[in-house]
Amino acid sequence: MKKLERLLNRIIDRVNVNLREPAFDVGPYVRGLIPWEKFVRFYAFYGLTLEHPLHFHFHHSSLAGSYFLGKCIVDNAVLYKSDIRGDELKSRGDVFRYRGLDIPLHDDEVIRIKDSFLVKNLVHNNSHDPESPEEFLIQNTVALQYANIHGSPVEGSFLGPFATVDLTTVHDCVIGKYAYVQTGEVTHRYVEDGQIWIHADNAFNFNFHFHPDDLNRYVHLVPGEVPTGIFMDFLEERKRDFISAFESVELKPNIVVPEGASVSRYAVIKGNTSIGENVLVAQRAYLENACLGKGSNAQENCYIINSRLEGFNITAHGGKVIHARLGKKVFVGFNAFLQGKPDCSLSIGEGSIVMPHTIIDLKESLDIPPGQLVWGYITNKKDLSRHSISLEELSRSEGEIVIGAMIFQGNGGDFVNAFQKRIEHILEANGAYYAKATGNRGHAQYVQSISFNIIQPYLEGDLGGMYPTIDICP
Amino acid sequence: MKKLERLLNRIIDRVNVNLREPAFDVGPYVRGLIPWEKFVRFYAFYGLTLEHPLHFHFHHSSLAGSYFLGKCIVDNAVLYKSDIRGDELKSRGDVFRYRGLDIPLHDDEVIRIKDSFLVKNLVHNNSHDPESPEEFLIQNTVALQYANIHGSPVEGSFLGPFATVDLTTVHDCVIGKYAYVQTGEVTHRYVEDGQIWIHADNAFNFNFHFHPDDLNRYVHLVPGEVPTGIFMDFLEERKRDFISAFESVELKPNIVVPEGASVSRYAVIKGNTSIGENVLVAQRAYLENACLGKGSNAQENCYIINSRLEGFNITAHGGKVIHARLGKKVFVGFNAFLQGKPDCSLSIGEGSIVMPHTIIDLKESLDIPPGQLVWGYITNKKDLSRHSISLEELSRSEGEIVIGAMIFQGNGGDFVNAFQKRIEHILEANGAYYAKATGNRGHAQYVQSISFNIIQPYLEGDLGGMYPTIDICP
Repeated sequence: MKKLERLLNRIIDRVNVNLREPAFDVGPYVRGLIPWEKFVRFYAFYGLTLEHPLHFHFHHSSLAGSYFLGKCIVDNAVLYKSDIRGDELKSRGDVFRYRGLDIPLHDDEVIRIKDSFLVKNLVHNNSHDPESPEEFLIQNTVALQYANIHGSPVEGSFLGPFATVDLTTVHDCVIGKYAYVQTGEVTHRYVEDGQIWIHADNAFNFNFHFHPDDLNRYVHLVPGEVPTGIFMDFLEERKRDFISAFESVELKPNIVVPEGASVSRYAVIKGNTSIGENVLVAQRAYLENACLGKGSNAQENCYIINSRLEGFNITAHGGKVIHARLGKKVFVGFNAFLQGKPDCSLSIGEGSIVMPHTIIDLKESLDIPPGQLVWGYITNKKDLSRHSISLEELSRSEGEIVIGAMIFQGNGGDFVNAFQKRIEHILEANGAYYAKATGNRGHAQYVQSISFNIIQPYLEGDLGGMYPTIDICP
Repeated sequence: MKKLERLLNRIIDRVNVNLREPAFDVGPYVRGLIPWEKFVRFYAFYGLTLEHPLHFHFHHSSLAGSYFLGKCIVDNAVLYKSDIRGDELKSRGDVFRYRGLDIPLHDDEVIRIKDSFLVKNLVHNNSHDPESPEEFLIQNTVALQYANIHGSPVEGSFLGPFATVDLTTVHDCVIGKYAYVQTGEVTHRYVEDGQIWIHADNAFNFNFHFHPDDLNRYVHLVPGEVPTGIFMDFLEERKRDFISAFESVELKPNIVVPEGASVSRYAVIKGNTSIGENVLVAQRAYLENACLGKGSNAQENCYIINSRLEGFNITAHGGKVIHARLGKKVFVGFNAFLQGKPDCSLSIGEGSIVMPHTIIDLKESLDIPPGQLVWGYITNKKDLSRHSISLEELSRSEGEIVIGAMIFQGNGGDFVNAFQKRIEHILEANGAYYAKATGNRGHAQYVQSISFNIIQPYLEGDLGGMYPTIDICP
């Protein structure tokens, strides 16, 4: 393990150099976090399809349990059970539009990860950075459990557990646990734990902070230890169900998969579960007694349990939906945690948007009407009134809205439009609108012919846990 | 499958150009032999260890079900369920001795396979060709089911099913089914079905031909079809037992593995089977009610069933031992088929050598005394007398010996010495003499820390069955 230990120390040093301002030492968060033997216990794997441009290059890295798709280059990095999905990267010849500029791509875009330590992260989508449209770069970065790095080049930063950076270029920042940032760009900043921050220049600003006491019950972090709290307890309880999926080389889904739908062989399907046409169930998704209507998608690390989703529902990366009934086109954002109970049912009406990083953990039954925007921490009807607004009302607003701990400034219509446009894009990209006659294929249709390749590290000695240099191209 | 089809046609053309003399068309043997869907059904895999120099390069090839270890380069080739074991290649700095010349190696040796079609072959050992000590080349070659290519560079040749070329450079030859050739070099020759031919310049020549009627019952070949006969029936009956070994990513052996021994997780272990110290059970080996004494090895594609082997026994690639008791250091050569029956037991005394490609298929019980050389086709005591000689007698002989259909010319002592020296080398290389105090490690000890990597082809479309370009180095 000597080489891996040296590599981790080198990563710590590099990130710390970036984080001298704000002064932050990532060392205590990294050292001892993953027991050495775990770096050899879990295989890494990559997908091979005809649909996505292909290039994998892994050099001087440890990749335990990680998954790769598309074009991914990894140098001097430690990726632990992370998913690096390069299937929505831009292609050569595409034109990247930014503030009236048309930037044509002279090469296929690649995800490039250097000198970084990512633990159970999801890295997805494409770089929205106009400065580097051909490279989605993650460098000198430490990101802890269940952080999402989504279309966000990240350099010299620390992401706490369950943090999400979304369509944002991040330089030299500390992003606190369960913080969500979608601001286009953010530099030299300490984003607090549980801050939900969406900003578009000259358009709008959405800001909410979880109360630290509430947040700590869900995510508690001691440096160098695995996070604790309700989120991790929930995940730990269901961890064993994934074992058989990862132990077999091939697995057929144990449910009926209708026309245009696809279920990853690395998903867990339990109980009385059914899916409709064009449904996408991604790897590491977990469905138990779940009914997913036509065109829904259950993304990586999402859990849908004892719930019915009417159709065209998005449950984004890390979203959890338990004992709930969701109307059509209800959107559940990244790492949202919606927990009804057998005696406290949750229903959410058609077209409502549950913001990323929303916690709904019910102490009484709750019906959220259609067309609402919902955020923050909700346990009952009273909480809902302080953590929601109708999309219609928000659309009409100009200036400032303050509801509970949330402050919205700017053009509400722009905010709602941007969100709804994005929801449509996600549905389209995932193949929700696929029809045999018209085409309109998306991930649900593409991933039907994927083959999985399993790569392993050296098992012992100085090189233990490190992977050889691997290069794969068409 | 279009690309794979074009590749196979290209291989056929290239081999046929080499085989214009002797005129031989490999096309009928290749076309239609493997149903197209099988090229996507089975994964290929490679081993990663700290013990062997590492380089894999696969380009424009189909590799279904094949296994690689060491340094292997494959270009424009179709390998189907073949094992390419480069773990005994020579290393940079080694000195290759040939007739008084010392040839130092300026690079690690690699196995290089080009423009060839190999079906269920075993490729192993290192090149014994003084002309090219750094490259063990297989080019423009078609080799059918269970052919062994052992330390033998092969160019422009056709190997029939169950044929073996051993420590021999082969140019532009047709090697008939179940023929065995160990002659140092052979060019532009048609080696007949079932010919057993061992030759050392200015030393000795061993020659035996199976009777075609006998041979046809064991291996029958119709071009373009899978061979039939007793050998294939035997293998087909046991094929299903391998399924679970290949379906799981990891598997622990289901028997006690003593100090210094190793059992491949791709071996089948059934019934009441036990192994002693320093035993090596290679992948695709099959043990059922087998007792293997200390230092024995069961090599690839060998089957040991209802048998007891006293210790330091070699069962070479493809050897089958059924209802037999083998004394110490009994050697069973490549693709030998020793079939006792519950009521016709076979015993072979200490130190006897069963030549490669020997068929012992008993109609009555048979005791072969210690120290014998055995070859050919034996069903009873009478057959034995025409297909054996004591090693002692052979050692003393000069000139010519004719026994049944076997003709031996030259120095019997040289022949016996060469064989015994080789047996000692195999035992040593496989780790039979390992002791914790003294070291003396071999394969049985090395393979204990191997990790297996699974690679897959494109699943459909024009590229179906083809693999991307893969390069792996330290």
